[in-house]
Amino acid sequence: MNHSAEAPTTHEFSAYKIIQKKRDGKKLRRAEIQWFIAGLLKRTVDEVQMAALLMAIYLQGLDKEETAWLTDAMLYSGQVLDFADPTVIDKHSTGGVGDKTSFILAPIAAACGVKVPMIAGRGLGHTGGTIDKIESIAGLQTSLDLTTFSEHLTKYGLVLIGQTEQIAPADKIIYALRDITATIESIPLITASIMSKKLAEGANGIVMDIKVGQGAFMKNLTEGRKLAKSVQETAARFNKKMLIHLTNMSEPLGYAVGNGLEIIECIETLKGRGPKDLRDLSVSLAGGMIYLAGLAKSHGAGIKQAKAAIKDGRALQKFSELIARQGGDIDYLTDYKKFKLAAQTTPVLAPHSGYIHAMDTVKIGLACVELGGGRQSIDDQIDFSVGLVFHKKIGAKIKAGETLVTIYHHPQQIALVEKICQDFSSHVILIKKVKAKTLKPLIFATKG
Amino acid sequence: MNHSAEAPTTHEFSAYKIIQKKRDGKKLRRAEIQWFIAGLLKRTVDEVQMAALLMAIYLQGLDKEETAWLTDAMLYSGQVLDFADPTVIDKHSTGGVGDKTSFILAPIAAACGVKVPMIAGRGLGHTGGTIDKIESIAGLQTSLDLTTFSEHLTKYGLVLIGQTEQIAPADKIIYALRDITATIESIPLITASIMSKKLAEGANGIVMDIKVGQGAFMKNLTEGRKLAKSVQETAARFNKKMLIHLTNMSEPLGYAVGNGLEIIECIETLKGRGPKDLRDLSVSLAGGMIYLAGLAKSHGAGIKQAKAAIKDGRALQKFSELIARQGGDIDYLTDYKKFKLAAQTTPVLAPHSGYIHAMDTVKIGLACVELGGGRQSIDDQIDFSVGLVFHKKIGAKIKAGETLVTIYHHPQQIALVEKICQDFSSHVILIKKVKAKTLKPLIFATKG
Repeated sequence: MNHSAEAPTTHEFSAYKIIQKKRDGKKLRRAEIQWFIAGLLKRTVDEVQMAALLMAIYLQGLDKEETAWLTDAMLYSGQVLDFADPTVIDKHSTGGVGDKTSFILAPIAAACGVKVPMIAGRGLGHTGGTIDKIESIAGLQTSLDLTTFSEHLTKYGLVLIGQTEQIAPADKIIYALRDITATIESIPLITASIMSKKLAEGANGIVMDIKVGQGAFMKNLTEGRKLAKSVQETAARFNKKMLIHLTNMSEPLGYAVGNGLEIIECIETLKGRGPKDLRDLSVSLAGGMIYLAGLAKSHGAGIKQAKAAIKDGRALQKFSELIARQGGDIDYLTDYKKFKLAAQTTPVLAPHSGYIHAMDTVKIGLACVELGGGRQSIDDQIDFSVGLVFHKKIGAKIKAGETLVTIYHHPQQIALVEKICQDFSSHVILIKKVKAKTLKPLIFATKG
Repeated sequence: MNHSAEAPTTHEFSAYKIIQKKRDGKKLRRAEIQWFIAGLLKRTVDEVQMAALLMAIYLQGLDKEETAWLTDAMLYSGQVLDFADPTVIDKHSTGGVGDKTSFILAPIAAACGVKVPMIAGRGLGHTGGTIDKIESIAGLQTSLDLTTFSEHLTKYGLVLIGQTEQIAPADKIIYALRDITATIESIPLITASIMSKKLAEGANGIVMDIKVGQGAFMKNLTEGRKLAKSVQETAARFNKKMLIHLTNMSEPLGYAVGNGLEIIECIETLKGRGPKDLRDLSVSLAGGMIYLAGLAKSHGAGIKQAKAAIKDGRALQKFSELIARQGGDIDYLTDYKKFKLAAQTTPVLAPHSGYIHAMDTVKIGLACVELGGGRQSIDDQIDFSVGLVFHKKIGAKIKAGETLVTIYHHPQQIALVEKICQDFSSHVILIKKVKAKTLKPLIFATKG
């Protein structure tokens, strides 16, 4: 007797039984995970079944092996590149407010001989998107196909494109489901999402920047370390080298938040100026890439090379070549007026004297979105000209009436700007009379 | 600053945050549950979000209050009848193999002055459906509208219709999701599903038959008692009287499994014959209804009235009137040839002597489905003529070669019938040489 009346499909596997197994806290088999993800793509497994499985995974977990199997199933849902070149090294950040290191570390690493394949996303929510930011340079083209992408990487060692349907399409479906079903903050699901995309891009090593703090997915160092362990173990199963940074997201990285403003800050950093925190992190990540590529004997030696590439202008040159190659106007690098930043600026003033104790980075990110610098819904157009420039970091002393932040906005946004000023000086930026504690060290690097 | 970029909707509530709350094991507010169910009906809450919430509820539970709030939200998703008549008493069974008590208890209760509103379902899976079974009587119409339903109930005290979109439509959507996402066996979800439909039917009291055993939702008495407690508490919050039976589903109820065969067994029981287990249970449930209606001083006194209504033929008369009123041919009650049962019968023989120890009721139910007596998919046509008639109950002594079951089938089903014979005599019906333990008492009645 067969069980056709019980099982929703006539296959060996059944979505119902796989969900039931994970629901009951049991370990899934590799073939079950493969079948489920393949079914999701073929539409023989319903999205409501995927949603139920995601919640079961959120609450019951996946072990190391299951996480690797899920990564593998998602990875092979699309095209998988393989450059068989040890100097191809990728970078991933879990995302933060003012996070703009890609535009600095990629040209640095490329200048030092690393081949850097960048496939980056757009912003939705309180953090900006890499592709949105770079599009503040007019003409720049990021929709190259995968063949051109591979050619540029091999030939020039540096290429930047937007996410494509061909890479890990299962991740796209699953991420959209997680985004509306409260199953985002799951270590195995985050691991599989990141690693399936990164492994498909054909890199032989990955440097990862896991943001930790109020403005990040990972709210504290314990959670950050768990994710680090999980991605490291998954990378090891796929024979990929990995170097992980756990970095602070309790305040924006650098001073600028907003598309054009952030690119200017990156160019300044490539010119040897720019904020210390942004420069230090970018150089450390680039140094890690140089080290993983086998072009330096240690992470420290890699950092030295990275610093040298800024100092002698090779990194800026690489960035300039990338922009030119992908159709962008390189005059932006020398003439910031080209960015056509919003003409009106309004300062947010300190309401009283004291020390900056904390910043609500989520609200800072959302303020930029409200000004037009990010998307409130998926079809929104980005306004590259608006944003915020901070003047102080946490721990800094400030006097009543001094400027905390400068808002770049349009004349018709006065009401919104007044609200932002009010919010920022009353509770988004916390100023106390007592001296603020110094923030924990910026970088914890762990090698995979 | 608003959180429009974070929240998926602009309402006060967000589906994401409600799922997140239950995911984290927190108690939902009444307004949150109402908003979520209303959104599901309006399609502003996505079915994938409902699926994720169902899995979160499965794993994190709902307390008494939340269960009542969910019941309430599902109840008021459609039309709610209210007869304001203390003698309107409903009955519900959680479903089992060979479960056919409705056709016996409803005419008995009606004969004793109870008004019985029956809104019943069709079968899918291993248990049959009430509506499918009664349709083995040609011409019988069960698709009356709710106005006609109410008129019949008030005027004649007995009416039977199929499930309608107007009663608890939210339950229909939710049940379809639970059915494919492994979230069926959850006490609060079962409670809300049953009670939302039953409360909408306007009864002032409910007699419930919770089946316990291998062929039922509730696999053991502990689970059955939990469900009993949950539905009792929910009924109490809605000021409804309730009497619950916990009954055995470790073997089919009565001897017949299959649509026409089961209706014949019911008619026999209404004629004062029929299997003892079926008669005892039907009379106990009917007695409970008479008692809850205030027409008997105790459950015991109700049972006495029920027995009398069989003995003097009033129950059979009520059944006959119901069939005639709803367009059915009453000659079926006296001439069983009208049922046109499958002409060919094949016996399943005992492979050796001994005692019957156990029956796999799920496989028995599925064997009937495979013969055509149930649906393998939602569009399948029911074959009323096929089925199984058992000859022995668990505990009975049997000799090698004696008939265990008679299969009613068509000539072209020989291969299938051979497989069923093989299965049944080798592992579906367990025969051991030692004497079998008597089954636990059939009925545990608990008053709400």
